[in-house]
Amino acid sequence: MRVEIISIGDELLIGQTVNTNAAWMGEQLLNIGVHARWVTTVGDRHADLLHALSIASSRADVILMTGGLGPTHDDVTKKAACEFFGASLTLNKKVLAQVKARFRKRGIAMAPVNEEQALVPDNAEIMQNELGTAPGMVFKRDNITCYIMPGVPGEMKGMMTRVVLPQLRKRLGGRTILIKTLMTTGVPESSLFERLNNLDEIEKQARIAFLPSLFGVKIRLLAVSTSRPDAEKRLAAAELMVRKKIADAIYAEEDISLVKAVADLLLERKKTLAVAESCTGGLVANLLTNIPGSSGFFNRGVIAYSNDAKKELLQVPGQTLEEYGAVSAETAHAMAEGVRKISATDFGIAVTGIAGPGGGTAAKPVGLVYVACSDALETITERHLFANDRQGNKQRSAQAILNLLRKQIIKDDV
Amino acid sequence: MRVEIISIGDELLIGQTVNTNAAWMGEQLLNIGVHARWVTTVGDRHADLLHALSIASSRADVILMTGGLGPTHDDVTKKAACEFFGASLTLNKKVLAQVKARFRKRGIAMAPVNEEQALVPDNAEIMQNELGTAPGMVFKRDNITCYIMPGVPGEMKGMMTRVVLPQLRKRLGGRTILIKTLMTTGVPESSLFERLNNLDEIEKQARIAFLPSLFGVKIRLLAVSTSRPDAEKRLAAAELMVRKKIADAIYAEEDISLVKAVADLLLERKKTLAVAESCTGGLVANLLTNIPGSSGFFNRGVIAYSNDAKKELLQVPGQTLEEYGAVSAETAHAMAEGVRKISATDFGIAVTGIAGPGGGTAAKPVGLVYVACSDALETITERHLFANDRQGNKQRSAQAILNLLRKQIIKDDV
Repeated sequence: MRVEIISIGDELLIGQTVNTNAAWMGEQLLNIGVHARWVTTVGDRHADLLHALSIASSRADVILMTGGLGPTHDDVTKKAACEFFGASLTLNKKVLAQVKARFRKRGIAMAPVNEEQALVPDNAEIMQNELGTAPGMVFKRDNITCYIMPGVPGEMKGMMTRVVLPQLRKRLGGRTILIKTLMTTGVPESSLFERLNNLDEIEKQARIAFLPSLFGVKIRLLAVSTSRPDAEKRLAAAELMVRKKIADAIYAEEDISLVKAVADLLLERKKTLAVAESCTGGLVANLLTNIPGSSGFFNRGVIAYSNDAKKELLQVPGQTLEEYGAVSAETAHAMAEGVRKISATDFGIAVTGIAGPGGGTAAKPVGLVYVACSDALETITERHLFANDRQGNKQRSAQAILNLLRKQIIKDDV
Repeated sequence: MRVEIISIGDELLIGQTVNTNAAWMGEQLLNIGVHARWVTTVGDRHADLLHALSIASSRADVILMTGGLGPTHDDVTKKAACEFFGASLTLNKKVLAQVKARFRKRGIAMAPVNEEQALVPDNAEIMQNELGTAPGMVFKRDNITCYIMPGVPGEMKGMMTRVVLPQLRKRLGGRTILIKTLMTTGVPESSLFERLNNLDEIEKQARIAFLPSLFGVKIRLLAVSTSRPDAEKRLAAAELMVRKKIADAIYAEEDISLVKAVADLLLERKKTLAVAESCTGGLVANLLTNIPGSSGFFNRGVIAYSNDAKKELLQVPGQTLEEYGAVSAETAHAMAEGVRKISATDFGIAVTGIAGPGGGTAAKPVGLVYVACSDALETITERHLFANDRQGNKQRSAQAILNLLRKQIIKDDV
């Protein structure tokens, strides 16, 4: 199946908006075993759109178009699609009722221009829009299927999930495609690769892909078979081989962030947390409090940039700071213990380091970071040396302390 | 000038990497008055690349290609370009010397495969790569110029800035294009629009564009003229008309974030800051400490989620919390004053609110946020009601407190 994505909108061409829609669609397609082959972006111009449709029709079986369905001036997509697929616009009463109901619900008067949203091509299947006024459209001609969706990410994602992906799956025929995503952190891609030394054995069961980022390596297993039980068996076998060798690096079995996994652990086990940060400057607390419901475990955070703040707010002994310095295992240890004690929480975590670009020395270079996790039984510290820019070093430090916390939370699990 | 961007790489098609390169290039092109017309993304396949080049050559004058110049297996771009432009590869001793020098400098042995980077097309101009091993190439045929650059953002940006943009500017001929960006926050696009009621008068001097985001509205003025003094005069006249009407909303005259502008103000004036956060959960401190050199003004941050933390760490009176609640102007006031006093800083700022999705009531709905800024003379509070999701509400709250702080820092300026 050859798939082309056509993204429409001047804002994409002038860099005002980054094309995250195409990236999301590409990832979703891969999840059903389809590798998108082209992404074409054009502006809100009738002629450019027609040309893009004509090129796409000459090379792809499936076209996924997004954008340009707004009710006002940039309504070029619907018109161009009608011209290309030989359709006339006709009033769809069901869509009109839905558009009107949407405005009623929000208690605002509907501008007449919105009625145009109910004018739909007479030869297209309509995809309902649960989050907006612009309906989606499916055109079929020869062996080409063209799905047209709004550019608003939520609206596009709704149609992709409810209509497009299931239809494409079906079209792929008897094949069952199963995906398993294993999220790892703290171990570089090259080490994972080495530890999994026998990729050939794994690949006999399922395709394996490594997707590295600043936050870790996502491992994607994809099993394809003509029968579902066989695909399941293959996926399970591949997963087992992977798990056996890198279990300690895996923090989740679905595509979630480390902080979400840690938050889930804390909430499940009804444990509370306090955070002491120096070089991460609030990033760790910010990530944790991005999670809805984080007030269920997050008690407080202290960002102690100055030594005074470390002493006053975190009870770090002045002697520790003098003897070992603010960036040291000893200070990280004292910060984690201090914040746990003043907050009376189950866990206290701390980060201290040099994010850069300034502040490094030969003995304590930029990127040197100590993290510590304290609970009632013990306080563990780790030393890291990162080589990213300031924000990268902050992010990797946050990842390191969250991973240490994760390991401490589950340390007594069998 | 019709410009097409061709982005190469499987990682872009499967959603592993978002195409930020194309967005950046589009923005840079707009800054010299050129509106990119197409962005085409293809994978690392020889045939697809040739086809993309052939389509682009049929419709564009300038082609900007990035990606696929790595030294190993995905080295498809150079080969495809050579085939398309009828070139042979020939060893370029200067490039070879540069590649070798790069490895020497890093103190690592050069894998022989890197020597291939010095094989360059015999009919292309070479663009030096100051950050990597892959040289850039410029092919010219008929009236088409095709620039080929690496996909690594820093390497591409270097070549764009040093070679491509200056060459395109020159090619645009006698026209001078001048851009002025005014950054605003705190006033919605529709209000700015209304207050600037006479856009026609402004547009006689310079084109004006409004680029809204969660963080405010970027106003871009673009003056074009055959003479530089005239362009300068037009730009200044347009800017004056805009400034007269919305001066209070403008926080910077170049494309920088509000937090950067605030950090610059604090550093210039040698003022110090302490931050007390509830609903933003560390975001404000995180933004501030993302700025290199923030230890010059940032003393500490306290993330007081629980009432206990507000009392213990910020000296918020228990009575204030009981009488008005944690989300109130009174509590915000006490938090800002408290954090300033315990830290002995010039400014103390505070945010308290309900980020959602849970925790709202009829009297205090999700999105209700109080921000406060305290200095030696006074403590100001503001009430906001945001309607975004959790992270959006956090971001808008951070923006609101940073803007209040900005206004307080400059309040005595003439």
